[in-house]
Amino acid sequence: MSKVRIGIAGYGNLGRGVELAIRQNDDMELAGIFTRRDPASLKPLTAGAPVFSIDEIKSKQNDIDVLIICGGSATDLPKQTPELAKYFNVIDSFDTHARIPEHFANVDKSAKENGHLAFISLGWDPGLFSLNRLYAESILPNGKSYTFWGKGVSQGHSDAIRRIEGVKRGIQYTVPIEAAMDAVRSGSQPDLTTRQKHLRECWVVPEEGADLAKIENEIKTMKNYFDEYDTTVNFITEEEFEANHNKMPHGGFVMRSGFTGDGENTHQMIEYSIKLDSNPEFTASVLICYARAMARLRSEGATGCKTAFDIAPAYLSPLSGEELRAKLL
Amino acid sequence: MSKVRIGIAGYGNLGRGVELAIRQNDDMELAGIFTRRDPASLKPLTAGAPVFSIDEIKSKQNDIDVLIICGGSATDLPKQTPELAKYFNVIDSFDTHARIPEHFANVDKSAKENGHLAFISLGWDPGLFSLNRLYAESILPNGKSYTFWGKGVSQGHSDAIRRIEGVKRGIQYTVPIEAAMDAVRSGSQPDLTTRQKHLRECWVVPEEGADLAKIENEIKTMKNYFDEYDTTVNFITEEEFEANHNKMPHGGFVMRSGFTGDGENTHQMIEYSIKLDSNPEFTASVLICYARAMARLRSEGATGCKTAFDIAPAYLSPLSGEELRAKLL
Repeated sequence: MSKVRIGIAGYGNLGRGVELAIRQNDDMELAGIFTRRDPASLKPLTAGAPVFSIDEIKSKQNDIDVLIICGGSATDLPKQTPELAKYFNVIDSFDTHARIPEHFANVDKSAKENGHLAFISLGWDPGLFSLNRLYAESILPNGKSYTFWGKGVSQGHSDAIRRIEGVKRGIQYTVPIEAAMDAVRSGSQPDLTTRQKHLRECWVVPEEGADLAKIENEIKTMKNYFDEYDTTVNFITEEEFEANHNKMPHGGFVMRSGFTGDGENTHQMIEYSIKLDSNPEFTASVLICYARAMARLRSEGATGCKTAFDIAPAYLSPLSGEELRAKLL
Repeated sequence: MSKVRIGIAGYGNLGRGVELAIRQNDDMELAGIFTRRDPASLKPLTAGAPVFSIDEIKSKQNDIDVLIICGGSATDLPKQTPELAKYFNVIDSFDTHARIPEHFANVDKSAKENGHLAFISLGWDPGLFSLNRLYAESILPNGKSYTFWGKGVSQGHSDAIRRIEGVKRGIQYTVPIEAAMDAVRSGSQPDLTTRQKHLRECWVVPEEGADLAKIENEIKTMKNYFDEYDTTVNFITEEEFEANHNKMPHGGFVMRSGFTGDGENTHQMIEYSIKLDSNPEFTASVLICYARAMARLRSEGATGCKTAFDIAPAYLSPLSGEELRAKLL
């Protein structure tokens, strides 16, 4: 059996996560890393891993079965995924929920016109959380769904903190509020405000002599980022920051509270949760098992754009249908 | 859009659950209930629902799109599902894990030979729990999976209690042990014995004058049922039993603890759980959304036997692909 040859386009945290995930799957191999930086400046985790300029990528069409595009959703992926789908079977983790229909249409057109297969918006949200929303809502049509995120680092909110005058380093954790989750689990189907669902917890290393009260106030009142939340701001030393806040944990919960039977007396609760020490490594692990599905679906002739909703679960596993039925069903 | 016409074969708790689940889904309709009992003796929950003898079922081939077989796994389904797959597209909830490969082969042969589609082993375990095992193991290949059941009624164990002399009524709850689940969540990947994973909690109404110590001892030492577990036996009055133990709650947890990256420092945890007021009504709700998938796959020409592993999630939802991407992705 030949291995699935994976290309990685973009070598940030997610790209490195994909590189590590390939090592955990015997049926995958790293065919190349493509970067916008000078390839010679890149130090891959895998000794001898081939690194190329992204400008050379079109010449590698015959060397790559699945290209995993590890750019950002704001500006990279809307351009890269449709463009690269002309030349490769591609996977991305596009996560701007509101723009998914538009992104899907663009990628679908490009992939279909060029006889390629594309999976978009994979990872955990969108991705695994979306799957759980779909399964749970299909099973319990009379019900209400809830998604909570965290505890985990929000890159956007951390960036916002760091732009404030007097902040040397800063990180923000989104924290789901336990009381709100318990209310959901009780079957009361509460209507929850933004403030009732999540806290925002900030850890800041101030510049020497900075006005701490002013920083705290600026964070807490920042429009669109913090003003609708209960926010805590903690000032710490650079040493503490290095020791305790240099990881990228995340997680979250998808819940469906529903009623079956006659009336609304029989409560049924479905809950899915993840708790991640490393958000990018986990996301990468999701992408890699979908790369397996892509290789199989491509060999069946599939083209165009698909999401996690369109892919039968069996395609993700290295086990055969027989093995799956015997071991996991 | 014509509705999916559902037949129900077997009218016990699960069959009644299917009848109730049909009402929650506008695209489904109840085409007939088939029973081994005298049809005139049956009182369906739905006024005017057509009830037939199971002996008449072959004559109803043109009236039913999907037949949901609600028999037991021990003796009914191994015979009924392959036999009825000759005449109908069928769904069952066969749950004897060890015999699934054999059941699959029998049903697949029958369905294929007769141009029908069959889904077996649907519900929550096998079913949703199996799906979660598959997704989680595919994403985190370096890891360990755990399934916990309960708190919920085990029919087999309740039956075993009721066979003991001096027991008037009895029910048994399987209870997952919180400390074991917390050990799993910690990432320590413990090896857990049967006794460490679940407790067995029994509630017994004794006959007048029965020897309670003897009953308790017989329960706790019963081979294959209780001897490998820590078991509690509580004696209660018939009134208490009626008031507190006449429901069929159940639930459980599927957990995957895995490591990504280099070495085993980065712990990633996936957890899926359900908490059900009614086990049969929930199982029925799963079967009904797979009936929707069956109608769609059948219209695409699919035949043979499939499990939850083989069915793309989008087929379960009444929403279109566009709607799903806009609302749930």
